[in-house]
This record gives sequence, C-alpha cells and structure tokens, in this order.
Amino acid sequence: MSDRPISRFDVPDLHDLPDDIRELILGIQEKSGFVPNVFLAFARRPAEFRAFFAFHDALMDSNDGLSKAERELIVVATSATNRCLYCVVAHGAILRIRAKNPQLADQVAVNPAKADLTERERHIVDYALKVAGDSANVTDDDLDAMRAAGFTDDEIWDIGAIAALFALSNRYANFTGMRPNDEFYAMAR
Amino acid sequence: MSDRPISRFDVPDLHDLPDDIRELILGIQEKSGFVPNVFLAFARRPAEFRAFFAFHDALMDSNDGLSKAERELIVVATSATNRCLYCVVAHGAILRIRAKNPQLADQVAVNPAKADLTERERHIVDYALKVAGDSANVTDDDLDAMRAAGFTDDEIWDIGAIAALFALSNRYANFTGMRPNDEFYAMAR
Amino acid sequence: MSDRPISRFDVPDLHDLPDDIRELILGIQEKSGFVPNVFLAFARRPAEFRAFFAFHDALMDSNDGLSKAERELIVVATSATNRCLYCVVAHGAILRIRAKNPQLADQVAVNPAKADLTERERHIVDYALKVAGDSANVTDDDLDAMRAAGFTDDEIWDIGAIAALFALSNRYANFTGMRPNDEFYAMAR
Amino acid sequence: MSDRPISRFDVPDLHDLPDDIRELILGIQEKSGFVPNVFLAFARRPAEFRAFFAFHDALMDSNDGLSKAERELIVVATSATNRCLYCVVAHGAILRIRAKNPQLADQVAVNPAKADLTERERHIVDYALKVAGDSANVTDDDLDAMRAAGFTDDEIWDIGAIAALFALSNRYANFTGMRPNDEFYAMAR
Amino acid sequence: MSDRPISRFDVPDLHDLPDDIRELILGIQEKSGFVPNVFLAFARRPAEFRAFFAFHDALMDSNDGLSKAERELIVVATSATNRCLYCVVAHGAILRIRAKNPQLADQVAVNPAKADLTERERHIVDYALKVAGDSANVTDDDLDAMRAAGFTDDEIWDIGAIAALFALSNRYANFTGMRPNDEFYAMAR
Amino acid sequence: MSDRPISRFDVPDLHDLPDDIRELILGIQEKSGFVPNVFLAFARRPAEFRAFFAFHDALMDSNDGLSKAERELIVVATSATNRCLYCVVAHGAILRIRAKNPQLADQVAVNPAKADLTERERHIVDYALKVAGDSANVTDDDLDAMRAAGFTDDEIWDIGAIAALFALSNRYANFTGMRPNDEFYAMAR
Repeated sequence: MSDRPISRFDVPDLHDLPDDIRELILGIQEKSGFVPNVFLAFARRPAEFRAFFAFHDALMDSNDGLSKAERELIVVATSATNRCLYCVVAHGAILRIRAKNPQLADQVAVNPAKADLTERERHIVDYALKVAGDSANVTDDDLDAMRAAGFTDDEIWDIGAIAALFALSNRYANFTGMRPNDEFYAMAR
Repeated sequence: MSDRPISRFDVPDLHDLPDDIRELILGIQEKSGFVPNVFLAFARRPAEFRAFFAFHDALMDSNDGLSKAERELIVVATSATNRCLYCVVAHGAILRIRAKNPQLADQVAVNPAKADLTERERHIVDYALKVAGDSANVTDDDLDAMRAAGFTDDEIWDIGAIAALFALSNRYANFTGMRPNDEFYAMAR
Repeated sequence: MSDRPISRFDVPDLHDLPDDIRELILGIQEKSGFVPNVFLAFARRPAEFRAFFAFHDALMDSNDGLSKAERELIVVATSATNRCLYCVVAHGAILRIRAKNPQLADQVAVNPAKADLTERERHIVDYALKVAGDSANVTDDDLDAMRAAGFTDDEIWDIGAIAALFALSNRYANFTGMRPNDEFYAMAR
Repeated sequence: MSDRPISRFDVPDLHDLPDDIRELILGIQEKSGFVPNVFLAFARRPAEFRAFFAFHDALMDSNDGLSKAERELIVVATSATNRCLYCVVAHGAILRIRAKNPQLADQVAVNPAKADLTERERHIVDYALKVAGDSANVTDDDLDAMRAAGFTDDEIWDIGAIAALFALSNRYANFTGMRPNDEFYAMAR
Repeated sequence: MSDRPISRFDVPDLHDLPDDIRELILGIQEKSGFVPNVFLAFARRPAEFRAFFAFHDALMDSNDGLSKAERELIVVATSATNRCLYCVVAHGAILRIRAKNPQLADQVAVNPAKADLTERERHIVDYALKVAGDSANVTDDDLDAMRAAGFTDDEIWDIGAIAALFALSNRYANFTGMRPNDEFYAMAR
Repeated sequence: MSDRPISRFDVPDLHDLPDDIRELILGIQEKSGFVPNVFLAFARRPAEFRAFFAFHDALMDSNDGLSKAERELIVVATSATNRCLYCVVAHGAILRIRAKNPQLADQVAVNPAKADLTERERHIVDYALKVAGDSANVTDDDLDAMRAAGFTDDEIWDIGAIAALFALSNRYANFTGMRPNDEFYAMAR
C-alpha cells in the first residue's frame, strides 16, 4: 500500500541488467510470486549484488549447526536493534515461516528480553546482539561462555557472521530507504 | 501460543474482584470476545485499575482534536521506543483497525523515520517521542513549533499526555511481564 | 521568587472548576497554607486531574509494606533521573519531612550511589531506577533478587508502580513546564 | 548528620601537614567556622593540594569578565551533569550566596533547561555543558557563536577552563567518595 | 611484536585451502611481502572469503567518483567509531599511503572533528559516520544535503556502501579478535 | 604538516611571558628540540600554566608505585575515550618511549579491550576508564577490587588522579583546539 519508491536511488530496468542478475531475479519472481525489493535496489550495482547474495547464501541457506530458523532469528533481532524496516518486515515473514511461529518475530523485534525463547535461542540472540551493537567489547570470555553453553566454534562464527552481514544489510537498506514489499507484512501470520 | 503466565504477579479470580471491576471485565469479554490481559494484570490492584482505565478513557476515547487513530499512533510509537511488548502488540492491532492501515503499526514500531506518515502525523510522532524519551528538554520552543504547525494547545497537551500515560503503562507492562493476548498478533492484518 | 508562569498551558480560574476539584484544592490550601502548582496545572483537565490524584493517593498514602518515606524516596530518585524540576523540588521537601532527614533528598537527587542509604533503601532505589530508566530489561531475575532480599510481591509491585506513576508525572511536569512553588525549596531544611 | 568518612582514603592529621597547608586550612576554619572536606581530602597529597587550589583560585576568585556568581553557576551545572555530590552541595551553597538566589542552584542541578536563567546565563551554561560532556565536538563554530552572543575570548576561555577544572574536581570527589560537610546543605536557603 | 594469535578461531593451513584462495594469498604475499591477517582469518570460510573480497574490491579499488584515498578515509573514520583495531591499523597504513599524508589517519581515528579535512572530505566523513552509527535516521534530507554539496548519487551510494561494508568487516574483526600484522603499525609514517 | 593554528585563542609572544614561564619553555626547547604546543597554548594564562604543570609533574614524573609507562598508559586510554587529539598523539609518543613498545599506544587508543595488556595493566586501564567516563558510579567496591588485585591505596589514588587530571587536560585541549606538534606523530615508531 505504500507509495514510497523502492529505493532513494534509481532502480534499473530488468532488461538493462546483466544476464545472470536478470535471470536470478526472474527465477525468484517465478518461485515467490513477487520480487523482494532488495534484489531491485541492489541491481543498480551488479558487483555488489553478486557479492551480497553470495554472502547471504553462504550464511543463510544452511541447516548445518544453526537451523535456518535460528539464522532468521538472528537477522530479526539484530535488524530490530538497527531499526531497519526492510529487514525486520521481510525477515520477520521468513522467520514466521521457518520457525512455524506467527508471534516470535514480533516479540523479538519489539523486545528480545520478553520473547518466548528457549535457553539455546536466548544464548544465540544475546551473543548476536553483542556483535551487532558492541562488537568492540567481544572478548575471549564471550566465546568461552558460548562454548560452555554447548555451541561449536562454527556455530559461534555463524552467529557473529550473520550479525555482521546484517550490520551491512541494515545500513544499505537504511541509506537507500529500501521499502519492504507489501507481501511481507501479512505473510504467515 | 505463548505459555508464559499473564503476569509475573498473581492474578486474582474474577469472582474475587470488586463488582465494578468484574462487571467491566465481563462487559469487555462480551464485546471483544476475549479479555485483554491488561485488565487481568491490573485487577490485582483495584484502585490502580480504576485510576488507570479512567486515565486511559479520558485520553484515548475521543476524536476531539486528535483522531482516535492519531492517539493510537502515539501509543505505538512511544511504546516501541520503550520496548513494551504488550503495548506494541495490543495497540498495534488497534492502530491497524483505527487507521484502516495494516502496515503503519509495524512501520512505526520498527522505525518512525521510515514510516509512511503525513506531515501532520510526523509532527505528532516527533513531539510524542521527545516527551517519551527526553521530556527534560521539552522547552517553550517545542510548543511554539507545534503551534506554528497548526496544532491547538489542547492537541499538544493530548500528545504529551498520551506519551506520559504510556510511559506509565509501558513500565507497568514491563515490570509485570504482561503477556499480549494471542488474539492481538494477527488482528486486522 | 521565580516569575515563570505555573504552566505553559492556561490555568483555569478556581471558580470555573467542577465542584469536587475546587473543593479539593481549597481543602489543600487550608491544610498546607498554599496550593501546590501540580493541582492548578492539572485542573485544566478534570478527568485527568481525578485519575492522577486517585493514582497518587493509591500509591503514596500508605505505610503498608513500604513506608511513606520509602515511597517518597522512590519519587525523588526517579524524578531526578528524569530531571523533573517540579517533582524533585516538591517531593524532595516531602521526603525531608517524611524521612526526618534534611540531606537525603539532595543526596539522592544528585547521585544515589553516594547517598546515605540503608541496604534496604539501596535495593528499593536500584530497582526503582531500573523500572524508571530501563524497564524493557526487567526480567524474572530482578523480581527473584528482590524477593531474596526480603521484599514481598506487594512491595515489589509498589516500587515499580511508583516509578511508573512518576514516569507519567515527570513527563506531564516537563511538557507543561510546571513551576515548583517557592515554598518547597526551603521546607524542612 | 552523615556518618560516612570524609574520604575513602586516609586523611592525615593536621599537625602532620606541611606548614603552608596547615596554615591555609586553619585560616579557612577561622574565616568560615568549619573546614570544607575538600581541603582535608586533598591534604593527603600536598603537591596536588597546592596545584588544585592554585588552579581553583586562578579561575574562581575573580569578577573580571565573568562574575563570581556566573563562575559558581558553571560549577553547579557541570558538577550536576557529572553527578558529583560534594561539588553540587558545596558549590550550590556558594552559588546561593553569590547569586543572592536560594533557588537557582537546585534548579540548575536538576535541570538547566527549566532553570530561571537570563539569556547570558543560558549561553554560559550551554557552552559549559558542552565542554563538560562533549568537548570532542567543540568546534570553531561554538566559539564564533559565543563571540556573536557578546562574549570576549577571555570569558569563553574562562567558561571552558572552569568546566575543565571541575571535570577534574568532580572525578577526584567521586573516586575519593568525598563527603559534603553538613554545613553546606542548609546554607543560604 | 604481539604474540596474540591471528584469530580466536582456527586458521587453516595454506595447503588445505581451495586453489583460488591459496593462489590469491600467495599473490598478495609476493606483492606486499607479507599476508595481511584478514586473508588468513577469513580463509576458514571460503565462501565468505570470496564474497568479502569481491565486495571489498568492488568498493575500494576505484578512483571513479571517490578517490582511493577518500575511500580509505571512510574506512578509517567508521572503523574507529566501531573501535576495530585491525581495520584502523591496517587501513590507517593504506590511508597514509593513498593520501600521501602521515597524520591524517591518526587524526581521523582519534577525532574527525579535529582532523585536517577539506570541506569535501568533511562531508564524506560526516555522512559516512551517520551511516555507520545511526543509519536508522538517514533520511531524504541527508541525500539532498549531499547532492547540494556537489556529490553525485553514485558517490553518495559509495560512501554509504563502504560504511556498510566496514560495519560488516569491523564486526568480523572484532568477534574473531583479528590481530593487525606488525607491518602495518609503522608503514608510511 | 598541519597548517592549523596552535590554538583557537591568541598565543602570546615568548618575550611577553613572565620570566619563569619563558625560561621553562626555553628549557624544554633546548632539551626536546621543539616546544610542545601545550606549553604555548597555556602560556596565555600564567596562573593556569603554573598550576597545570605543577599538577602534571606531581602525577607524571614518578616511578613510585606506578611506573612512568603505566602513568602514560592511563593518559592515552583516558584521552582516547575523550577523543582528545593533542593528548593521544603527544602522550602516545611518550608511551611508545616509556613502554619501549611501538604498538601499545595505537592499540589502547583504538580499543583497550584488544590491546596487548598484562593483567596488571588491564586493571589499571579499566579503573582509569571508569573514573574518566563514569566516576559517579565509582563505589567502595571498586577500591576493594583494586586492593584485592594487589594495588596500594597510593597507586589507586594515582590512577584516579591521572584520569582526573587528563579529564581537565583533554577538555582544555578540545576547547582550545590545541594542535599536536608534527614531531609527535612519528616519534618512536
């Protein structure tokens, strides 16, 4: 319903895009029924587009160690602390789907301390928020505490890396004024 | 879906409540189909219950000056800055209904700067957030700026008063750990 | 000595007020020798006036659990953190009287960490300041810690509720620019 | 009335002090009727004692440019932002005397934005608070604005220098836990 | 001289790396005389390694619009605000080389407000720091101000994108405890 | 290389200075080969000049308890948190010399949590940063913790006092815009 533009910066026409990017976008559209605006906003810069989605897929498309739902949980929690409208709305929808839980995304976005989290999820969210908001003070003690709570080094890396990737993504979305697609708001409620 | 209790403090049985409070609650249940947990959490303290809802009705049940939708907009914006889960979820639902807009509550809760607000709404939200978060620095200049933007003194008072009332309400909800009813999450999406 | 107005908003004449409010104010004047400006500033809005003082009396006029001095201690500590001139000056005077201590209010207003507090008072002030300034992070652990320190659930509720009420009161006083009466400054020094 | 010690660190006996310091302290006692605790707390370190009071006298004992009352106003405003109990209580008393105003110190300590300040005083306090709290961002523009408001370079230096001296003094008082003398609380009310 | 490990996480042996990554690292070593630790720390995760350096090269290896020195200036300013030791030390060295200025990196790292910046550089740094530290409040007005100061949309995008990339990079370096190579400290002084 | 003036305020000619100050400055020049700008900036105010350098010498020219290197470590850590360009650059050079370590100053200036500190140095820096940044919350517990870590009361006082002195010094340098001499940047790298 919003009549804001997708981005504060010009968005190229699909037919002006490099073939790989145009085909990726058309594939998404066919699969999802719409094109999330993040693809269109990044399309202005093909090299950054490719690097961003390579990063994204490396960290988000896996159930190895962290589940996909846990990965989305990190995205929603850290994007909320950075007040990134696009990421909270879009990944809130994905979290509702992945976690099969219609409330968790709203809870985490408003206040993680009041969210219905398992102990494991709370460790994940707390560490992710420290990387997102105060990474300068992450010390050996933080890693030791996570290891003591049962996390592997690869899981700890993944949590930090996802928080770092969305530190980037939130800033792109915020400086471009990226608009969430209407479809995300009501998805999987 | 949450199995958290309604409140960290004991909630009295309906039949133990003073008549006026029990009847008010039963009336709400009949009208809404459920009892918002704020009524049950406050019922522990009848005098505070009566004072709180008297305050609430004095400020929220009016279209005089500020519309009801504008009043709910203030509640969602200030409750989000205070990270009050109950108030954002419950009043987010009411805002969706009052504003006939399924996206506005989520936008304002995540980041008012990115919300689709009219100029009038932006003035309301900015002033409300100053009262909510930095009232010590509200000066004559703030009131003059609101007057210059076309607001009456009664409207300016109402914005400040609603921000003040939910400063109270958010703290009650946060220290009692008040749980939003499941019904609110999906309402009017 | 200040020649500031009582409030940035018009203050109604006594004879224009509803009977119950005018009589309440005249009763205060007879008892105290002056009318605290909070009564005059709120008189512009009879419904809010009644709700505010009902709330106030429910929480402040009791020695049940928390003493009246302890209740005023909460008011001064939280009002100072919100930098509310009216509330610190007016309730500072009342705290000096209730606690029979001419220094405590100034100490708490400037820096609770340096105030001469008993262990019980320090628990009260620390918890009240968390509700006042960071209620989003009040968790079950905070309540458990208070219970372990010997506080009943009703006392814990009262501390939070008083901090919440003055979150409201401080914001009203700050947005109206409420002026403390000259009488309060030197009272009970 | 407080039974806290004067300082967290040992305070030497008067007769163990170097002659110049003992005589200075005895002179103060004769003149004021009591010895402000700052003299006793600093006496542990004669070299720092001499340097501190030399600094103090250079900046505070003058009506050249800034009046003595304006100098004390800076001390109270900046000491309150640093939440230094000793300095707010002791210099609050001196400000009441110097400004012949029993309310100004309390007003400035609680909230400078609500204090009854002249336009000149507001410029002084605002600039002093920037030096006290955010000196890293003092730029040429700040000095130009002060010059445009009619302040000489020597006055601007004095405001910054007093804010700087009490940044030191507040930290000494805070880390030593320096206790204000009872005499200061009620003085010149 | 530091005997800290390169990273808190295991660093793979060169001969265990995928060919493209091993060859890239050996090429760097041949060209620079040493391997910056960022290559070794990221080598644990080949997909993230490739995405990160693709991102880096897309944004940093260009004199189109922003000069390479201006790009490094953004990195040092934003990495300092995030207190990322690796990035400030390593990119400080590169900035000294690119800008042919041995002081600029230290100035910007300590306090951009005191750095010897041209007006164009100050615009770049101020906007980059807003994206780095408060991207939620970047609005259309910020972009308009940059355009009015003579920046093209591609330059404005680049500043924001570099600030975003190092928001990611700083968090990776901070959570891995990435150690700057000794070589960087003294380079181009 | 910077062409900024030494100070935003006029700097007197050497031959206009009181004899003691002129001779002290000439002595420094003969010994060091240049005159650190702090001497010239303070020369505008002879009484403050004398008090400041008396304070400085009392706290910095000693190996009693704290070593000179440890004293400079406190200066760099606290000056960095106050973002004082002059003090970080000038005392960074002195720290490199005193600690015979070319990296420590840069590490501490960017992020003490990542600096290569001994356990004793970490205690010193942590306590100094609390005095510098949050002295209002220094309590008896902080002193007891330092004593338990093996520090004498005189050492604890010295750490606090040096943090306090540079709270003053940083503010003077920041409000005067004191420029670091070019010589300091490359010294002892």
